[in-house]
Amino acid sequence: MEDLISSTPSEDDPVNGLACKDPRLVRANDFFFSGLDLPGDTSNPVGSKVTPVNVVQIPGLNTLGISLVRIDYAPWDINPPHTHPRATELLTVIEGSIEVGFVTTNPENNLYTKILEEGDVFVFPEGLVHFQRNNGSSNAVAIAALSCQNPGVITIANAVFGSNPAIPDDLLAKSLSSLIDQANLNATKEGKKECLCILT
Amino acid sequence: MEDLISSTPSEDDPVNGLACKDPRLVRANDFFFSGLDLPGDTSNPVGSKVTPVNVVQIPGLNTLGISLVRIDYAPWDINPPHTHPRATELLTVIEGSIEVGFVTTNPENNLYTKILEEGDVFVFPEGLVHFQRNNGSSNAVAIAALSCQNPGVITIANAVFGSNPAIPDDLLAKSLSSLIDQANLNATKEGKKECLCILT
Amino acid sequence: MEDLISSTPSEDDPVNGLACKDPRLVRANDFFFSGLDLPGDTSNPVGSKVTPVNVVQIPGLNTLGISLVRIDYAPWDINPPHTHPRATELLTVIEGSIEVGFVTTNPENNLYTKILEEGDVFVFPEGLVHFQRNNGSSNAVAIAALSCQNPGVITIANAVFGSNPAIPDDLLAKSLSSLIDQANLNATKEGKKECLCILT
Amino acid sequence: MEDLISSTPSEDDPVNGLACKDPRLVRANDFFFSGLDLPGDTSNPVGSKVTPVNVVQIPGLNTLGISLVRIDYAPWDINPPHTHPRATELLTVIEGSIEVGFVTTNPENNLYTKILEEGDVFVFPEGLVHFQRNNGSSNAVAIAALSCQNPGVITIANAVFGSNPAIPDDLLAKSLSSLIDQANLNATKEGKKECLCILT
Amino acid sequence: MEDLISSTPSEDDPVNGLACKDPRLVRANDFFFSGLDLPGDTSNPVGSKVTPVNVVQIPGLNTLGISLVRIDYAPWDINPPHTHPRATELLTVIEGSIEVGFVTTNPENNLYTKILEEGDVFVFPEGLVHFQRNNGSSNAVAIAALSCQNPGVITIANAVFGSNPAIPDDLLAKSLSSLIDQANLNATKEGKKECLCILT
Amino acid sequence: MEDLISSTPSEDDPVNGLACKDPRLVRANDFFFSGLDLPGDTSNPVGSKVTPVNVVQIPGLNTLGISLVRIDYAPWDINPPHTHPRATELLTVIEGSIEVGFVTTNPENNLYTKILEEGDVFVFPEGLVHFQRNNGSSNAVAIAALSCQNPGVITIANAVFGSNPAIPDDLLAKSLSSLIDQANLNATKEGKKECLCILT
Repeated sequence: MEDLISSTPSEDDPVNGLACKDPRLVRANDFFFSGLDLPGDTSNPVGSKVTPVNVVQIPGLNTLGISLVRIDYAPWDINPPHTHPRATELLTVIEGSIEVGFVTTNPENNLYTKILEEGDVFVFPEGLVHFQRNNGSSNAVAIAALSCQNPGVITIANAVFGSNPAIPDDLLAKSLSSLIDQANLNATKEGKKECLCILT
Repeated sequence: MEDLISSTPSEDDPVNGLACKDPRLVRANDFFFSGLDLPGDTSNPVGSKVTPVNVVQIPGLNTLGISLVRIDYAPWDINPPHTHPRATELLTVIEGSIEVGFVTTNPENNLYTKILEEGDVFVFPEGLVHFQRNNGSSNAVAIAALSCQNPGVITIANAVFGSNPAIPDDLLAKSLSSLIDQANLNATKEGKKECLCILT
Repeated sequence: MEDLISSTPSEDDPVNGLACKDPRLVRANDFFFSGLDLPGDTSNPVGSKVTPVNVVQIPGLNTLGISLVRIDYAPWDINPPHTHPRATELLTVIEGSIEVGFVTTNPENNLYTKILEEGDVFVFPEGLVHFQRNNGSSNAVAIAALSCQNPGVITIANAVFGSNPAIPDDLLAKSLSSLIDQANLNATKEGKKECLCILT
Repeated sequence: MEDLISSTPSEDDPVNGLACKDPRLVRANDFFFSGLDLPGDTSNPVGSKVTPVNVVQIPGLNTLGISLVRIDYAPWDINPPHTHPRATELLTVIEGSIEVGFVTTNPENNLYTKILEEGDVFVFPEGLVHFQRNNGSSNAVAIAALSCQNPGVITIANAVFGSNPAIPDDLLAKSLSSLIDQANLNATKEGKKECLCILT
Repeated sequence: MEDLISSTPSEDDPVNGLACKDPRLVRANDFFFSGLDLPGDTSNPVGSKVTPVNVVQIPGLNTLGISLVRIDYAPWDINPPHTHPRATELLTVIEGSIEVGFVTTNPENNLYTKILEEGDVFVFPEGLVHFQRNNGSSNAVAIAALSCQNPGVITIANAVFGSNPAIPDDLLAKSLSSLIDQANLNATKEGKKECLCILT
Repeated sequence: MEDLISSTPSEDDPVNGLACKDPRLVRANDFFFSGLDLPGDTSNPVGSKVTPVNVVQIPGLNTLGISLVRIDYAPWDINPPHTHPRATELLTVIEGSIEVGFVTTNPENNLYTKILEEGDVFVFPEGLVHFQRNNGSSNAVAIAALSCQNPGVITIANAVFGSNPAIPDDLLAKSLSSLIDQANLNATKEGKKECLCILT
């Protein structure tokens, strides 16, 4: 509730995450970030890279309720299903064609999808699971705004199958058990076989 | 911003979800729910049942920022990994022993776990993936409070692997691809074989 | 606006009440409380005991907007009229039968009451005067959720008649003056005589 | 989240209390109230009169989080202990001398008091019990701002001893029981006898 | 989210602007300001003076969402067009006659005006440009409440034409360019000549 | 507080601006906007064009606290000084070089400026006066995110000098009077003469 509440690294205990800088010491650079034009390195298993621009990169965003990300996608590659626990996302396609989707809460779990072209904008409501996929054979780029200066991101695969330490295997297996039979059946029918083995 | 903002079914377009009842027509029953002592039916694949008490069941909760659930767990069974897109959860064990856990956001994805006994209370911060498991051979029961009158729930397995329509298989496979090799390796080493086949 | 904003005792001036702990030092115990199964000692004038579980007991609740209390009631005894200045309350009867009520604001001051049995749930909207009474000859127990991590409680009798120092007697007498005649009349008619003397 | 969200009487179910007027029909009068210079009639048992200026009187205050009251006090008379369930109050003395006080929550129930003269300002934090008394032999006037367009007011005496229907007498008697002995003792010692009889 | 969150000067980095005082050290004076009855000195170019009463003057207002100003106006003088970036304003005329106005956002930019007399109240919705003018030949006084403990004020003339350093002249000239022709035309027609020269 | 609170045109009185659509009728198109890649027409006096993408264009943004604009700038042209009464802005340069600035509140009125190149990001804190200028001889483009689904925009020149009806001339002249002497002096010294004539 000040004009300038730029955050500052603190040796003391942080306060609601980040302490505030003395307003007399705030400079234009506290409100500035450079490099959102630089392509992210997509050479990783999912083929996409998220470059964040939030209160960590721009201390002047402290308490202001907004942040950005740039997302680069290799051809046909994805930003895998994830949620932001503290933000709605508003994504704009800068380059390429991107398929997007979000899933509503239980019990409907309806999937809303759309294929976006350059200049198209799409909303992912707060906390819902959503994803994007490069829908073409060239690189794609999006810039997304988020309604929190520190929105957080939970990549479902990492949080559920790759946490540190791991969620117990049998718990994961049971979580997925109602889905396995049908999945195996489909795999068998279609002769496909890449599997994620849930240890039990 | 009234004493009594009980919701009401409306033939008109709903407003922020629910319209308000004429305060003169509000009765004590608008603030009342009965049946949280009744065991939920846990005869389902995950072996747990969530009984909600939110603005749908208690219209008088409209705008008040709080709700409840009762959770019943069959022996050793689970409430699978899920998130609440609009609420923190505060769970109390009423009966039995329950292992609980939540996972922080990227990149740490730290898992915090605890085994709770009757009378123990645990917090699941807003929007984070969390789960519970009955840690015993008898039934277990918890009551959980949520910081929203309409918190929503996203069961990860259902939203990611069971949405309507389905998220494309190849997108899911790629989402999980970095996890598969290690999982298969572990499975091979340990001679275990229950698998979720991701079609590719 | 972080995953983990656990509070910490501080030698410095507290910030919005409580400073935040370094996220790297947060442990599962910061989200944990034990003992809500333990009966509170009701051997006091009102015959009830409130056991709080808020940000004081669970530092990890800092900023998360939710807390709990357990309330024990001796037979026929009460949780006297009180308000929570910063929270709505959602009460569940765990054991016994409890009469509950709340009063709306001026000028109506309507009393809404309900007799609750085990498993019944009732709402007390934010800031309104409310009370409970054990409606039976055995102990009763409730667990109540509150929509603030530090809801505060104002027992009307204590705040109005027992503050430190006292509210001036003549001010209290005048506050109650319009009610005294009718009350005395009723007392006389019914031959009852237990009085609170307001010094004037 | 519009410039002009003036409320309007509605034949339909009200929405969060009040529906919004078509912005094209909003006039300057929707933001206007006249008469705060008029003395309130203090010929009542407590000798004070509160004139409200909130969203009921000024429809344009809808959603804007602020309102006013004018308070007139007859000589030595009072605005009895009360709370605002949804607002902090910031009071300015316009005329006369006024003693003010508020009481903090349990368990301290500390009373903070101050004698205010014309031009003095005092804060009553959200939801706390507070009161004022004309500290002189001429009329006094205050204007108070409240941090909600519909703050509500709960006069403790009315809500606790005068609700409609009444809170059961025995419940009130028990609520006050721990205070009675000392009060009677004091009354006896000082030979004073104006009493509020609590029926038991 | 405490009863008493009085701010305190801090040698450390301030937190959301102001650190909190140890509640045990809070005194009634932390909620008190004296002097709103004193006329402000209006001997300045615009002929008005604003006396603020916010969290800077009353540390106990920290986090409570409300503040005040007294505004003195010399005869026919003005409180020039300004905005409050973080508050709605609710103004009461204490003495004299005051013309008030606010302008809505683009594209309408509708001006709502009203001439207020003593005891009249008017709303300036959050963030909108507004002004007042003493509509008489004697002094006028208003007290205004604001919906934030630190509302900020931006006098348009100062921020746009008098910032430190200055906004570049050519940028200002272009900002006003579409208005100049008509203004000059009017000036010529009416033989009036007081000008603000925009350097280009 | 629902997953899907898409707004809908309503024949009834609007509610907080916009009524909600029946969730069963919500479609992916309710979260979609197309055309942010299209250059805005900058052939106007200030040489820039703002294309909004807020709850008016995307009904699914209702209540979600975020929106976008695309801004096109002709060479050396400007987005003139303006404020958003309900939002912080986070601007990204997509093409060209742009000088940006904002001015803090009274009494400092400090101007913070920065020259941004493609890929640079800058913050304009909520409610503060800010502007942009194309700092080059080719077109420039920015995309800006705003922390409200309906942020509003107040172009200072239009609201102050071009409202409907006009703010009285003498009031504007007095508002600017303290600035005129110095401006005229400078103009004289430098032999420049483009003027905005304030009628008096």
